[in-house]
Amino acid sequence: MDDPRGILEEFEPLFYPRSVAVVGASDNPFKLGFHSLMAVKSAGLQGEIYPVNPRSEAEIQGLRSYRSIAELPRGIDLFVFAIPGEQVVPVVRESSEHGGRAGVIFAGGFRETGPEGTMRQSELVAAAGRMKLVGPNCIGVLNTHARLNATFAAPLGFLAPGGVSVVSQSGGVGTCIITMLTDEQVSLSKFVSIGNRANVEFADMVEYLSLDPHTSVVCLFVEGLDDARSFFERARAVSGRKPLIVCNYGYTEHSSATALSHTGSMASSEKVYRGAFGQAGMLHAEDLTQMALAAKALSMGALPSGNGVFLSTHTAGPAIVITDICERAGVRFPELLPDISGRIREFLPPHSSPANPLDMFAFAWTDTSLYLRATDIALEQDDIYCAVAVFQSGMGSGITFPAREYAEIGQKHGKPVFLCLTAPAVFASEMTETQSEGVATFNRAEKTASALVALTRYASLTERLPGGARR
Amino acid sequence: MDDPRGILEEFEPLFYPRSVAVVGASDNPFKLGFHSLMAVKSAGLQGEIYPVNPRSEAEIQGLRSYRSIAELPRGIDLFVFAIPGEQVVPVVRESSEHGGRAGVIFAGGFRETGPEGTMRQSELVAAAGRMKLVGPNCIGVLNTHARLNATFAAPLGFLAPGGVSVVSQSGGVGTCIITMLTDEQVSLSKFVSIGNRANVEFADMVEYLSLDPHTSVVCLFVEGLDDARSFFERARAVSGRKPLIVCNYGYTEHSSATALSHTGSMASSEKVYRGAFGQAGMLHAEDLTQMALAAKALSMGALPSGNGVFLSTHTAGPAIVITDICERAGVRFPELLPDISGRIREFLPPHSSPANPLDMFAFAWTDTSLYLRATDIALEQDDIYCAVAVFQSGMGSGITFPAREYAEIGQKHGKPVFLCLTAPAVFASEMTETQSEGVATFNRAEKTASALVALTRYASLTERLPGGARR
Repeated sequence: MDDPRGILEEFEPLFYPRSVAVVGASDNPFKLGFHSLMAVKSAGLQGEIYPVNPRSEAEIQGLRSYRSIAELPRGIDLFVFAIPGEQVVPVVRESSEHGGRAGVIFAGGFRETGPEGTMRQSELVAAAGRMKLVGPNCIGVLNTHARLNATFAAPLGFLAPGGVSVVSQSGGVGTCIITMLTDEQVSLSKFVSIGNRANVEFADMVEYLSLDPHTSVVCLFVEGLDDARSFFERARAVSGRKPLIVCNYGYTEHSSATALSHTGSMASSEKVYRGAFGQAGMLHAEDLTQMALAAKALSMGALPSGNGVFLSTHTAGPAIVITDICERAGVRFPELLPDISGRIREFLPPHSSPANPLDMFAFAWTDTSLYLRATDIALEQDDIYCAVAVFQSGMGSGITFPAREYAEIGQKHGKPVFLCLTAPAVFASEMTETQSEGVATFNRAEKTASALVALTRYASLTERLPGGARR
Repeated sequence: MDDPRGILEEFEPLFYPRSVAVVGASDNPFKLGFHSLMAVKSAGLQGEIYPVNPRSEAEIQGLRSYRSIAELPRGIDLFVFAIPGEQVVPVVRESSEHGGRAGVIFAGGFRETGPEGTMRQSELVAAAGRMKLVGPNCIGVLNTHARLNATFAAPLGFLAPGGVSVVSQSGGVGTCIITMLTDEQVSLSKFVSIGNRANVEFADMVEYLSLDPHTSVVCLFVEGLDDARSFFERARAVSGRKPLIVCNYGYTEHSSATALSHTGSMASSEKVYRGAFGQAGMLHAEDLTQMALAAKALSMGALPSGNGVFLSTHTAGPAIVITDICERAGVRFPELLPDISGRIREFLPPHSSPANPLDMFAFAWTDTSLYLRATDIALEQDDIYCAVAVFQSGMGSGITFPAREYAEIGQKHGKPVFLCLTAPAVFASEMTETQSEGVATFNRAEKTASALVALTRYASLTERLPGGARR
């Protein structure tokens, strides 16, 4: 694709740096500068790494160290500023004047803190000159394709390279999204926690990633937009290039107050935003889970070209759940045409009728070819645009779903095929520990919220009961 | 608790059998009777196991086998019928006449198939006499406390014993719920897949489990109720004993059609049901995930006594997500009283204000005592009934949340404390395989539905775009 503005080149020093300076680098593991240098070092970047600390000896973490920015070679691609907020402005000015091209600022104490911080942020933007700044008040940048980990969390540097890029106002939600993608076995391309957005905006990242050859899908987590009109215009201009998925929160009383004191953003009206996302060609996800799931499917190219699903199952219950949720949201399950249904009827097991959803009972669990035959025929129907098979894991019994053959049927018809494979996951040891201490622990924000909602409702419910359910 | 009806005794042969006969037991792994006997045998039941098969030699799976029911000792507690539907009625009659007390019937071909099947089911009920029948058209019964696995899935027999019991019309959804509970690290007590409900109804199981000393929380998955009035009356009478959580689906066009052909149940009006669940003192979960999460918290005794949450965090984004979702559903985050907020202010890090939600920035991630001090003070406030801390996993960095001290603070105040611990989970190998074949795979029904909704919406969205996002 064309890049008339040269945006790929503009952000090359940020995402593919040939040299990285870590200002505030330290040998003391209680300092952010320790974790930050460790993250850059351990990820495997092909490029020079320069620890900078005025109080340093000859080496930091085994690398030759520098006492000042002036000592560094000129024209460093990326500066990682692991220093307190009050030191940031002069150090950024010096880095920029020394030819630095991009910077990541972790520290808070800027726009999110009120008028004084807003003024400091203006000074920061002026000090940066042409230097591109991610942050302040963020957790940094990842690029799996360059083995770049410019955050302060070394484990993030070991993610396998993939096609989904994530831009999040919040570092915490950003890592939630990465975790969800990881759990869904989707690999990450780039991650940018943009925080207060000194001079790198959502729209810049959307434009860059829409052209980035290593990105197939872009996920955005938005709390608020400073110049919403410009964002929507710029997003609309590039949304035809690849899927852009957006999720936003921060509309209720306390969530908007937290957002304001978070990265200094005021959320606009919810309805206005939601409509505008769609008009700009972006997929608006209802929640983070949905964003991760949609990103997975889209990154695998699994996009139906219309509204019509064929569902086959050996177990009715999960199919009922799926159908109920889908139909409420307007997803159609077209009736099978007489010809299609007649051909499916020929091989169905006893008591099974050729309908959509198609329940083939436990017969299909032991003879999985029933799924293949039914799907192959149903996908011929014009108003059926994709298929989903519901299958219960054999859990080691030797019974498995014939995924390869199923995929081939989808390819043959040029229609995506999906699998709902209900299976147990493996435990996470950390939750075992906190729960053994008596703390009910949830590993997702949505789960936590959902449990709180349910418990509160139950609390008010039990108040009205004669006996009360509390003991 | 009193048991005037003697229901614990009535279902003792089903859940704590001293003897189990597997009718249709087999050495052929392509037969259901093979898996069924294997399940009973491998789980570790303390009791006699009798394989029955008219074509058997001396032994089946190493156990002495029986050619007929007449050969068995009289008064077997539990019969597992792993035989085709058309053989069920006479065999159940013989088992009952031979003193059998309870039975599990896997086969379909009864009420779910129409008028003829409905007649066969009536014959079945007559043939059973006083024998309690789970099913037909179900996957059976589990009791972890008796090491009873009367299903045909041996792996279910190895679950650790716990306090949450599950009753599901659908076997497939039942195993989904068990999987979700397992992933949430909640242990199961009893599981009953009640299918067509020949003579064991939801209400029977609710009454039994409400008195069962090994059950602390009951989860119900309902597609339809035959005698809704009686169910709600009986549930209401026992709902004060312990939490009953219900989730139901099957209200949209195709989901209700599938439910009807599934276990022969017609769903009543959605609104009528939802209201009635609440009136009967049952917690109505919005989805299966919420049911699993609420069951976890309630089984740990973590029930707030009113509507008011104190939230503390080191990362604003996930807190915004939680607050937004909660406030939409009516959950309150009370303002801190001047005294409380004054005392919290004293130790807060720079730029942090004593609010609810309370954002203490990254300072609290490295100094987790901030959570403890803030929570300890906030829980003094009368209109705050519980606390939730949001914490990002240290992912092996050595930084961990002080769960024990946090739990102690909750205990001191007599208010539950929760933790949102965002952490990566471990991969499930099965999904790796199916996805390596090019099939987008989701391990939950809701996730599948959610992805389909999102993709369909995106499909219609991209149709209207100038360039189109499809390539």
